[in-house]
Amino acid sequence: MATKAYGAYAADKPLEPIDIERRAPGDHDVQIDILYCGVCHSDLHQVKSEWDGTLYPCVPGHEIVGRVSAVGEHVSKFAVGDVVGVGCMVDSCQHCASCDEGLEQYCENGFVGTYNGPTPDAPGHTLGGYSQRIVVSDKFVLKVGHGEEDLAAVAPLLCAGITTWSPLRHWQVGPGKKVGIVGIGGLGHMGVKLAHALGAHVVAFTTSESKRADALALGADDVVVSRDAEAMAAHAGSFDFILNTVAASHNLDAFTTLLKRDGTLTLVGVPEHAHPSPNVAALIFKRRSIAGSLIGGIAETQEMLDFCAEHGIVADIEMIRADEINTAYARMLKSDVKYRFVIDIASMG
Amino acid sequence: MATKAYGAYAADKPLEPIDIERRAPGDHDVQIDILYCGVCHSDLHQVKSEWDGTLYPCVPGHEIVGRVSAVGEHVSKFAVGDVVGVGCMVDSCQHCASCDEGLEQYCENGFVGTYNGPTPDAPGHTLGGYSQRIVVSDKFVLKVGHGEEDLAAVAPLLCAGITTWSPLRHWQVGPGKKVGIVGIGGLGHMGVKLAHALGAHVVAFTTSESKRADALALGADDVVVSRDAEAMAAHAGSFDFILNTVAASHNLDAFTTLLKRDGTLTLVGVPEHAHPSPNVAALIFKRRSIAGSLIGGIAETQEMLDFCAEHGIVADIEMIRADEINTAYARMLKSDVKYRFVIDIASMG
Repeated sequence: MATKAYGAYAADKPLEPIDIERRAPGDHDVQIDILYCGVCHSDLHQVKSEWDGTLYPCVPGHEIVGRVSAVGEHVSKFAVGDVVGVGCMVDSCQHCASCDEGLEQYCENGFVGTYNGPTPDAPGHTLGGYSQRIVVSDKFVLKVGHGEEDLAAVAPLLCAGITTWSPLRHWQVGPGKKVGIVGIGGLGHMGVKLAHALGAHVVAFTTSESKRADALALGADDVVVSRDAEAMAAHAGSFDFILNTVAASHNLDAFTTLLKRDGTLTLVGVPEHAHPSPNVAALIFKRRSIAGSLIGGIAETQEMLDFCAEHGIVADIEMIRADEINTAYARMLKSDVKYRFVIDIASMG
Repeated sequence: MATKAYGAYAADKPLEPIDIERRAPGDHDVQIDILYCGVCHSDLHQVKSEWDGTLYPCVPGHEIVGRVSAVGEHVSKFAVGDVVGVGCMVDSCQHCASCDEGLEQYCENGFVGTYNGPTPDAPGHTLGGYSQRIVVSDKFVLKVGHGEEDLAAVAPLLCAGITTWSPLRHWQVGPGKKVGIVGIGGLGHMGVKLAHALGAHVVAFTTSESKRADALALGADDVVVSRDAEAMAAHAGSFDFILNTVAASHNLDAFTTLLKRDGTLTLVGVPEHAHPSPNVAALIFKRRSIAGSLIGGIAETQEMLDFCAEHGIVADIEMIRADEINTAYARMLKSDVKYRFVIDIASMG
């Protein structure tokens, strides 16, 4: 099926309209007419070839919300007209230890990314959600329970939401826990909302005093400007868990030292340049950990979407037309977005 | 009580005989005639003032085995003649969250070290086990169940043993787990013995091929020379837990990448110069952790001693006279010891 999309033909080219093909739905496939697609920083890294191995043409987008327009013969969970989501993955091996545990993001054989992943479909690599339509194996399609008016703001839950939800759940954030969220951007603003809704005492860390009011409005119980050494010291040794969403190289010790004994600092961003080497004594003397976490599995993504529908949680977004994507990237590089751009796919029409 | 000891009057002075005073046992004190004291690398760091704040005269030693020679009025757990041990701590606040959980090594108010810690006793700081006698609060005295012939080799269990036991237990090493021990020295040789006795599949990592036979004899199921990239790669992504006993600065990524999803690399040594900054992607893509661990609490030290008595586990030692301590330090700096020096305190006679 001929499908309109937005993508780039090379790392140094802007995104532009591209005509792509989507496969006819197979027996286990769900065909989705895309309504909205969130704009993730990963999209920009991939399309600009800042990571190794970008295949062109590159159509980014892995925060997809749409409506089912066809289903394969053996699909029973979804019907035409259902509102659904697709996140960062469209396939995995389905038989390794991680897939067996519903942790497809850690598939031992490598999951298939929603874009730039291996596929027999033309052009030989997956093409993402900056497009009118996508066809995905039903195992990687999520049900969306939010109301129609929320659907644009649901899109970022599929990456920013699950990337923060998965570690918050894995490290058992909830009532009675003191939790830090470092960085109030696309990921961090979801981290604050979710940790708050999970019942934790939430402290937001930001480098800019200007985000204080916003962070409180998002659900933070307290806000600490991380450049303020005195304010940081007041929280020394007091956190059960800190989720660090900042990918830029920075001093991790500032946060490990805020953890209680047995606390964990979890990183979800890979820095372009290495962080300064963390102080080992800060780990040893309180049995603290530094960990990493990658997006989330399909089952926990569904759990997160259901939780968000029930609690009325969506992302804070700025809607754009598809032809505004290059400007949006430029603004994203300056962190000039509160907190996620979402493409109105109808604008491709 | 006048007591003979070995210690140093200054960082640049060798250890020499020193006369010290021990307090008369208080109501809750146990007076111990020391039989053996292990020689830990920390002793050397402290006495040479390679760490901040060494107080002189400095009498090191925190791997103590001896016989009870007097007990205070309110001591019921110990009697004159009992064989007992004292490790790295002789006191803690006893009322913080960590002390309440029996994790005195993480005392929120700071535990009192067996040497160089604060005390009202003369000379105002604690003096360690390179001495004929020590007086310790009964809460910090351990029962030793080994036979008389093993007592010298029991001494290193009080630091090297518990420092490896505590993380092995905390991270639930046992049957069905694949466990790495990095560095086959004072700590590492105990790590191999204990992990093996706990029923894990144990792989010893060493930089020297010459330690292969020894590591197998200690209980390792496999030995990998960590400079051999091919041998290392064969173990990629396969470990549940790796205990890293090497304090010298080295590349941690070589070991994090050997962990399974959700595996932990635990460090027990503080490097003088920082390790190269660990690769964050290696953490994120398998939800791995890097953690630290500090000695162990009193309850788990007793558990370890009981386990070792039951399983016939002691350290591999080389016995020395007290007047050989400076030579022993020089050899320890060249890693020329299998695997722990122990001072025969009778030689101070």
